Amino acid sequence: MKLHDFRALSKALSEIENSGPQSLQILKDCYAAKKGAPILGVTGLPGAGKSTLVDHLIQHLRGAGKTVGVIAIDPSSPFTGGALLGDRVRMQRHASDEGVFIRSLGSRGSHGGLSRATRDLTVCLDAYGFDEIIIETVGVGQTELDIMGLATTTVVVLVPESGDAVQTIKAGLTEIADIFVVNKADRQGADGLQKMLQAMVDMDNSRSQALTVTIPVLLTQANQGIGVQELWRAVLNHRKALQKDSQHEKRQQTFRCAQFLELCGEAIRQQVESKLLSNKKWKDLVDQVASGKTNPYEALEKVLKYFQNVAGDGIDNAGLL
Amino acid sequence: MKLHDFRALSKALSEIENSGPQSLQILKDCYAAKKGAPILGVTGLPGAGKSTLVDHLIQHLRGAGKTVGVIAIDPSSPFTGGALLGDRVRMQRHASDEGVFIRSLGSRGSHGGLSRATRDLTVCLDAYGFDEIIIETVGVGQTELDIMGLATTTVVVLVPESGDAVQTIKAGLTEIADIFVVNKADRQGADGLQKMLQAMVDMDNSRSQALTVTIPVLLTQANQGIGVQELWRAVLNHRKALQKDSQHEKRQQTFRCAQFLELCGEAIRQQVESKLLSNKKWKDLVDQVASGKTNPYEALEKVLKYFQNVAGDGIDNAGLL
Repeated sequence: MKLHDFRALSKALSEIENSGPQSLQILKDCYAAKKGAPILGVTGLPGAGKSTLVDHLIQHLRGAGKTVGVIAIDPSSPFTGGALLGDRVRMQRHASDEGVFIRSLGSRGSHGGLSRATRDLTVCLDAYGFDEIIIETVGVGQTELDIMGLATTTVVVLVPESGDAVQTIKAGLTEIADIFVVNKADRQGADGLQKMLQAMVDMDNSRSQALTVTIPVLLTQANQGIGVQELWRAVLNHRKALQKDSQHEKRQQTFRCAQFLELCGEAIRQQVESKLLSNKKWKDLVDQVASGKTNPYEALEKVLKYFQNVAGDGIDNAGLL
Repeated sequence: MKLHDFRALSKALSEIENSGPQSLQILKDCYAAKKGAPILGVTGLPGAGKSTLVDHLIQHLRGAGKTVGVIAIDPSSPFTGGALLGDRVRMQRHASDEGVFIRSLGSRGSHGGLSRATRDLTVCLDAYGFDEIIIETVGVGQTELDIMGLATTTVVVLVPESGDAVQTIKAGLTEIADIFVVNKADRQGADGLQKMLQAMVDMDNSRSQALTVTIPVLLTQANQGIGVQELWRAVLNHRKALQKDSQHEKRQQTFRCAQFLELCGEAIRQQVESKLLSNKKWKDLVDQVASGKTNPYEALEKVLKYFQNVAGDGIDNAGLL
């Protein structure tokens, strides 16, 4: 499988997103061919101006001769269609640029979940050979926090609007920030928000010590490109700090382990589901539960017993290892 | 297992949330004992005033002599501890009331995911015998949309603030609404927002026809309890409409089927993960992937082949059905 152009890449990404029959082979090949491009995560609450910021980051990177692959995670809505995706449209100015590839992922409908899809797509973009990979995601919810675990550097974007800081903290975003950006910095309250975030960063000693760099709190006006250069400098600084960080490789190992367990668990979960639906005896059980006649937890017990029986003791004799 | 008081209930809920050794037995018993209480879902973007609204709904229901069990899903943060959970504190006025039980679920750390935990906890609250069950969740992200699938009636709360409507639509919330609430209705723009939502509801004919009632768009001022009675009336209307709806049972069956598949898939996913970590040979493979030396997708192929071998053909001979 060779990803020689955007069309081939798009096709491969679709196959992976839909867990098609070729997807495992593509992923094996992509992983073997991956180049280790750094991943920048950009997250924040709805309306923080993430897309605009990413748009200007792309421009900045293109100016420096870098190629960029972007995964943009957008809550999709069959009801509204694409009508409200103005952010995406704005990014279309990069459409004719062969050094930029943007892929949108809806928040629903990805086979096996959004964080699975994002992880696998990232491997593919890396194999294609982009210098930089950016993941943009709306930062509320468990899935979105999981996705940001993929990023080498995570930028959390806030705006000086009432409640935004508190909601960002409540959503757990402040814990995953390597860099804070106060966007729409021309608005009232930007300085106050910056001070508040700075105080919070100073308070959180433990994490800063581990990294030997403090988390910067930057001001941007994304719609005018103001502060984008400084942001990029901070990203590069963070990468340098990571290289010097003795804990980094250990954290990476923990992350790779967790990712692999999730990968296996999710793949087997999919197989179990399809088995339950395709095998006559199991399908009868599913139908009984669906009709409300059978206690689902009793049915679950049967399923679990079966899988324990077959997979419990024989595991050493499988001859596959 | 008898859930005779709040302490026993709390203990059971914790066991379930953590997937403890007793959890499957508790759930089997609870499902068998469940009474079929209707579930009210309340969702919306951060800051919409959901907790305040739920607080007043509880008061209203208590006034009518009903007991209420609440699951509140709060993005938790180890960094901030409980300091910012002001909403929860406000609800403490029900703490001494034996007819009200409130359980908070963090958005992280629930074993097997948040939507699994919410579903199982709901079964437990129902078995305890509450007349009404309320699930309150911040409505952004895939998990949160999944959770709202549990609700008999889903209330989507919006506020007249710039961008709130668009973001609510983008988050997919408008598609799951049985009732719209424009909260903070004393603010400027409330009427405009109501009109906009009403127009959207009118446009969405297909769904309204299926239900034979249109989706109401109500105004509330939750902090003063204004509009709460009307909201409750709308909830009861929706329940009545569901009973007359010929498609309702069919949708329920589809939902129960999906829930059961998820239940089985998730339970087996957990077992696979623990097997991979506890068995020496598999653990070696996991370690190789963690160290970056082995291609995770090649390792996945081995795991899948093993599970296909053991679970593939023998399924009819398991003797468990």
